[in-house]
Order: sequence, then C-alpha cells, then structure tokens
Amino acid sequence: MIKKYYLLSPGPTPVPERALSAAAEPIIHHRTPEFSAIFMEVTEGIKQVFGTKEDAYILTSSGTGAMETAVVNLFSPGDKVLTINGGKFGERWGNICKAYGVNYKEIVLDPWGKDFSKDELEAELKARPDCKAVFATLSETSSGAMFDIQGFAEVVAKTGAVLVVDGISGAGVTPCPMDDWKVDVLLSGSQKSFMIPPGLAYIALSPKAWALAANAKLPKFYFDLKKAKKNLADKTTPWTPGISLIIQQKHALDIVKKMGLEALFAHHRILADATRAGVKALGLELLSQRPGNVLTCCKVPEGIEGSKLVKTMQGKYMAYIAGGQDPYKGKIFRIAHLGYMGGFDIITALSALEMTLMDLGFKFEAGAGIRSAQSVLKENWQ
Amino acid sequence: MIKKYYLLSPGPTPVPERALSAAAEPIIHHRTPEFSAIFMEVTEGIKQVFGTKEDAYILTSSGTGAMETAVVNLFSPGDKVLTINGGKFGERWGNICKAYGVNYKEIVLDPWGKDFSKDELEAELKARPDCKAVFATLSETSSGAMFDIQGFAEVVAKTGAVLVVDGISGAGVTPCPMDDWKVDVLLSGSQKSFMIPPGLAYIALSPKAWALAANAKLPKFYFDLKKAKKNLADKTTPWTPGISLIIQQKHALDIVKKMGLEALFAHHRILADATRAGVKALGLELLSQRPGNVLTCCKVPEGIEGSKLVKTMQGKYMAYIAGGQDPYKGKIFRIAHLGYMGGFDIITALSALEMTLMDLGFKFEAGAGIRSAQSVLKENWQ
Repeated sequence: MIKKYYLLSPGPTPVPERALSAAAEPIIHHRTPEFSAIFMEVTEGIKQVFGTKEDAYILTSSGTGAMETAVVNLFSPGDKVLTINGGKFGERWGNICKAYGVNYKEIVLDPWGKDFSKDELEAELKARPDCKAVFATLSETSSGAMFDIQGFAEVVAKTGAVLVVDGISGAGVTPCPMDDWKVDVLLSGSQKSFMIPPGLAYIALSPKAWALAANAKLPKFYFDLKKAKKNLADKTTPWTPGISLIIQQKHALDIVKKMGLEALFAHHRILADATRAGVKALGLELLSQRPGNVLTCCKVPEGIEGSKLVKTMQGKYMAYIAGGQDPYKGKIFRIAHLGYMGGFDIITALSALEMTLMDLGFKFEAGAGIRSAQSVLKENWQ
Repeated sequence: MIKKYYLLSPGPTPVPERALSAAAEPIIHHRTPEFSAIFMEVTEGIKQVFGTKEDAYILTSSGTGAMETAVVNLFSPGDKVLTINGGKFGERWGNICKAYGVNYKEIVLDPWGKDFSKDELEAELKARPDCKAVFATLSETSSGAMFDIQGFAEVVAKTGAVLVVDGISGAGVTPCPMDDWKVDVLLSGSQKSFMIPPGLAYIALSPKAWALAANAKLPKFYFDLKKAKKNLADKTTPWTPGISLIIQQKHALDIVKKMGLEALFAHHRILADATRAGVKALGLELLSQRPGNVLTCCKVPEGIEGSKLVKTMQGKYMAYIAGGQDPYKGKIFRIAHLGYMGGFDIITALSALEMTLMDLGFKFEAGAGIRSAQSVLKENWQ
C-alpha cells in the first residue's frame, strides 16, 4: 500500500490548503504597504482569538520564545512569583524564571493530569502577599489537562499580581477571553490552532501587565516588547519578521473569521467529545482529571508496551500520534484534535488505534471505539 | 501595464522556485527520522557555507536573534568588549551589549562606508589587554561596506579575545571561512544568500568561543546554545523549529551544493561588478570605501530628491530597491545583488534606475549604465 502519512500530533498540526499554497508565492518585502496591511490584519485576527482589545504582538520564534518574552518584559531579578507545574510545559515556566533569576515558588501537580482549583490558588496567594505573578497553562499539552483559567483570573484579579497564561496549544481551541476574564498575559504559537507551520508566536498584555513592564529590569533585546510596541504603531516589527508565515497566517485566520470563534470552539469540543467517547469505549482510561479539547491523553493499558503502541501507530499505520514525554514516556499516548482537523481525522485516529491494539493483543470489541465516536460526530454534524 | 514586482532588496531576497513549492507541501512532524535527516543535511550545508567543521545551530528567529545568541552565550555582565560600528547593523552589537550589561567600547566609523583596518584594530586591542571580544560585521547592509574580516581575525587570534562576526548579509556571498581565518563566531540569517524567507538564523562557534561559553553568566533560555548542543546530538532542537523553513532551506542549499561555494562567490562578484560598473557609468558615486558584493550603495546625486528616487523606483517601476536608513534616509539608495538573482535582474535594476533618473531630470547618457553592466556580464557569462 501507499504509505500515506496522517498528522495527529499536538503541534505541528495540519495546515489548510490555501495557507500551504500561499507559502509557494514569491516573497514580498516587509517594509511595504502591501505587507503592512496583511500584518495588521493578522494582528487583528490574533486579538479576536485572544478576546482582547489590547494590541497583539507577532514574534518570530517558537512558543517558548513568547514564554520568555512574558518573563523578561514583566519582571526584575528576585521578583517573587508562583508557577503552576502540571506537566512539561507548566514546568517550563519555572525553568525560564530560574534562568533569569526570578524567585519562583512552584506548585507541582503530581501525577500529571491532577487538577488545581481556584480555591487552592487563592490560599497560596493569601500566604504570599508579595507575589507578583501567577504563571499558568491553559492546556497542558503533555497531559491533555485543561486548567480553570477563568477561576484563576477571578482570584488573581483581586490581588496586585498578574496572571500569565501559556495558551500555546489552548488558544483558539477553548475559550480564554483575555479582557472578559481578566487574563493579564496570553501567548500562543502558530503551529497549533492557528493552523500554520511553526515559527511564529503571539502575545498580548493587559494594561496591568504593561504597568509591570514599565519597571521590569530583566535584560532583553530580541524579545523587547517596548520596541515591538513602538514599531507596531508604524505597522511593522523591530526585526525582519517571518514574512511568509505571516502571509500564511492571514489565510488560516480567514477560516476563523468566516466561521467565527464560537463555532471554532464548538468544532474542537465535538472532535474532543468524539475522541473521548471512542477511547472510553475501548476500555482506555484518560490521564487527566480535567481533560481538555486540545488532545486526548490515554494511559497505556496494562499488559501493553507503550513504546510499541506508539511505534506501531506511527511506523505501521503512519498515524502520527504522540507518545508520552519525560517520566510518562511509554506510559501514555496522545491523540491531538486541534487545528485544521475534520471529523474523519478522528475516525482515522481511532481506526489506527483499534488496529494497533489488535496487533498488540489487547482485548476489546472491534469497532466499538469508532462506533462511539461516529455517534458523537453524527449527532453534532452540521 | 501589469504591475510586476521586482524584489531587489538586501533581504528578503528572491526564493528559488523549488524552495517555494516545498513550502506548499503538507507539514511533517519534527520529531521524526524523516525530518531529522533533512535537519542534519541543512546543518551540514550551513557548515559548508560557514567553512567550519564545528557544529552549526539553527535558531527559529531573525538574524538579530542570532546576534543576541552570540552575546548571551559567551559573556558575563561587565565583560569588556570592542564593537565596530560602521552603520545600522554594527551599531546593533553595541545596543545588544548595552541591553545585557556588557561593557562595550564602540569604534564609530563616521561617515558610514568608512573603512577600518586590521592595523587600527591591532592598536585598539593593544590598548585594551582585558578585551574579551571584538564584534564585527562582514557586510554592513546599511552602507554596502565590506570589512577585512580575514585581517581582523589574524589580529584577534593573537590575543585572548574572540572575533564575533555578523555574517547576516555577507555569508554565502563573500568568503568568510571560519576555520581557515580563525573567526570564532559566525552567524547569518535565512533570507539573504541562504535564499529562503526570513524566520531562521544560523550560528557556529569555534572551540575558543565554546571555552568562553562555559563560564558565561548572562541569562538566557530560548537562545541557550548549550541546550541546542545537547539536542543536536539527538538530531533535533530544544524547541519546535521552523519546520517548513528548514525544508525550504534544504532545497535552496541543494543549489549551493550543486554549484559549489567558489562558484557562488564568483556569481555574486560578477553581479556586483556589473552593478558597480553600471552606476559608475551613470556618474553616480558609491558610499563605501570598500564596497562589498552583497549590495551597491549609491549616494543620491546633487539636485535629486532621494525619497523621490526610491519612491519612483518602488512605486512607478515596482523595482523594490532599498532607501537609506536612519541618518542616511534620502541620502543614499541600495541595490541588492545577493541570493537567487541572475544577470538580468541587474539589467532590470539598472534599467529602472535609468528611467527613474530620467523622470527626475538627472543628466546622463541614456543606456550607459546598462551597457557597462552588460559588458561585465557578457565577459563573465558561463
């Protein structure tokens, strides 16, 4: 058979055809009215996804670059902050703070997938009146967990601290309206629900965050948002931006603009519901207490070798799901359902999973996963 | 007439057709053997262009990100260094050092285009035995000047300092063999002679530079080369890289591999010679004492309004040359001849320039510029 490749990973995600073909057009210069118009249209689109009236900034970097941008632009050495570490990406907040000498207290959620409530956060903040920030994650890609960002924001807004949210995999999949919820910093990456290749990252700051930025003393140059702000007023960027990626982003955002943000969230909810229904029908267990709509993280069932499961999915069926990371390598697997994916991509994922489980001798009713997913999809199809 | 756009700017530069169409192919995952093979092939290609046996690192950022990478990975607060500022990009070295608390002494070359000799550098270094680095520019894009990097390296190699070279517009156009010349850090960007869109930057370090890096105390995270080194051993990057750009880079480097580096340098020398012959035949004067082969910077002739010249070239003839930057705005204009450009792109540039000069009432023999350029091209065409 022809070895056809199916991308089912939580980043990069499939790129819409029109955004792909746009990258094949000759490059244009970035200091032109023609490009500025596209650039400003993209920043508007990001603002829409972020739910904010504040400016959105486009960085040429991966999402991690935007995380560093948040830290270096808002804080000074020794500042006390709180980080919520519910997995590999929550842990990264602490690592960045450490690299820059920010005094962070880390809330480690063990095992991955464990939830953290706004009440627990409130208690932590009460014990730390000098805390300047809470660093959280909208969707923890390593565990599939969602966090109660709305609740966190409610709690943090009552204090002098700011709430900084890594929305790299979550923004555009699940609601996180910055202004309504009072999220102070939201950031994301281009290769998730923004539906284009990796290489761009997006960030926006609330007025409360900008006030912190005014006195932040950490060193910065490439990621300096004051320079970005000054340049945005001239509809441009301080450094040469990823021109072709920004043009691709315009075309991908056209889809979001056309369908509307609510429909985009509903789309992802349906795909996630179908996937969860499918894996549960196979007798699999989810890792997270509060699973999100970005990806579905399943525990590898007893008696099955996790690395073999992922290898068979990827190697034999070319269904590129993701395995577990760090301590969860071989223990979990992750099926993504974000970005430019349709209902039948979920069917493909579950079909490849069923065939793989058969190969590995796992006992289940063949077709049960697909049937359950199909029922969710059929019910919601429109 | 159809308004056809001709890109003649010193970055972005035209992208070869095969590299353009590669970006229209569906995205693949970066943690796969398939991508790792492409990634390693690209790092080999960069090493070839840089003339080094050391590892080359691919950053997802603009060239400025690679400049910051050099500073934060090699130095500690208060370290004494020397920067050579011969224009907007040489000045950037000082700005980055300033942002990070590196104690820099800046050699300002005024006016832009003024040369700086290795003997002058030697004298500066003798007066500063505690100098840890010299920051230089291979091709200063704001003035069109080349610097004597070979001479600088000869001088610096005799001291304890390292030579850090911004090769953003110069690498691949003009020789700068790191290992042979003893350049300690060389960096570049993807949108110049590497012939793909902006979004990637490249950097390599000599063993002398790595020794400095071992004790460098400046904070870093996204641009941490120790993390990049550890990941390169596994044929990957610490953060999600610009996947589609790296694949495009593979295809653009195929051209370099096929023609060879010497031929690539010769190609750029011919284009530059033709351009210089052309503008001189029109009675125009170059800005630089030591003009390079990357771009040709001309002074706007007496009696002509510089902003009008650039506006006519870009707006009426759609020949997208660049104007002057900062204090040289309106005083110079810049015709690039780097990357994926052929001989007739030079004819186009000079033809648009002649027509523009006619529009603006400048007196010269019509066709003289093209004739002179043509003669250089014809003589060297093969």
